[in-house]
Amino acid sequence: MDMMTHALELASAAAQAGEVPVGAVITDSYGAIVATAQNRMRRDNNALAHAELLVINAALQVTGQSRLVDCDLWVTLEPCAMCAGAISHVRLRRLYFAAYDQKGGAVDHGPCLFHQPTTHHKIEIYGGIQQSASEQLLTIFFGNQRGVVES
Amino acid sequence: MDMMTHALELASAAAQAGEVPVGAVITDSYGAIVATAQNRMRRDNNALAHAELLVINAALQVTGQSRLVDCDLWVTLEPCAMCAGAISHVRLRRLYFAAYDQKGGAVDHGPCLFHQPTTHHKIEIYGGIQQSASEQLLTIFFGNQRGVVES
Repeated sequence: MDMMTHALELASAAAQAGEVPVGAVITDSYGAIVATAQNRMRRDNNALAHAELLVINAALQVTGQSRLVDCDLWVTLEPCAMCAGAISHVRLRRLYFAAYDQKGGAVDHGPCLFHQPTTHHKIEIYGGIQQSASEQLLTIFFGNQRGVVES
Repeated sequence: MDMMTHALELASAAAQAGEVPVGAVITDSYGAIVATAQNRMRRDNNALAHAELLVINAALQVTGQSRLVDCDLWVTLEPCAMCAGAISHVRLRRLYFAAYDQKGGAVDHGPCLFHQPTTHHKIEIYGGIQQSASEQLLTIFFGNQRGVVES
């Protein structure tokens, strides 16, 4: 199975648990899975429990390294500023994401963090992979959760 | 003792432990301390273990809330994009910081996150409080650690 499909399955599981459907996978330089995560903001009662931050922390623990050089992140939604900053700190090699986030995204929208002159981390970015599948999950979720949207 | 002095003591303790000297305190609406933290990137072997992220997670655990509305953050260095994003997600009321960070800061430098049109969180920001004391800690630390600077 390709990694974005795996991330979408995690997003779908998040939705079933009442979480904003975002899933994430980190792979090593051989393409093997290092760690997976899904949004847990409600379960953890923590507004910082985004899939990307969780999967990065899990991957750091698994590898025993302080950074994730040569690892890649697959995530079903364009990362926010917090998560894009975290991606930069651990020096991930490639970022693959599915849906674009015009409101909260910080990669291709808002501050476009990796294009800031002060950015010290070069990363390959591939957006829009299985975009419509992720958008569908998000649309269904927010359609069912009107008025309780987390940002 | 005022809160920035407390944060500076935490930063000093971090330096003594070989960490980049950054300390942070979160206070509630009455000015009482909710949580404190200092940089732990080396101790935790985790490039995300910034004082701000740690103190926010600690405060969420202490209060049992998913956000920190009406709480204030005191930190000895201008927050990076990751930490500024986290501050936004938990809806902190006020941000007080000491030294400015031209290279890694994301509040008054780089992406100036709280001034982005897509920012959905209004926060009061007070920079430069006890700036020289924090700068001195950082200068001494980086003077002693040439070549091993964490970003």
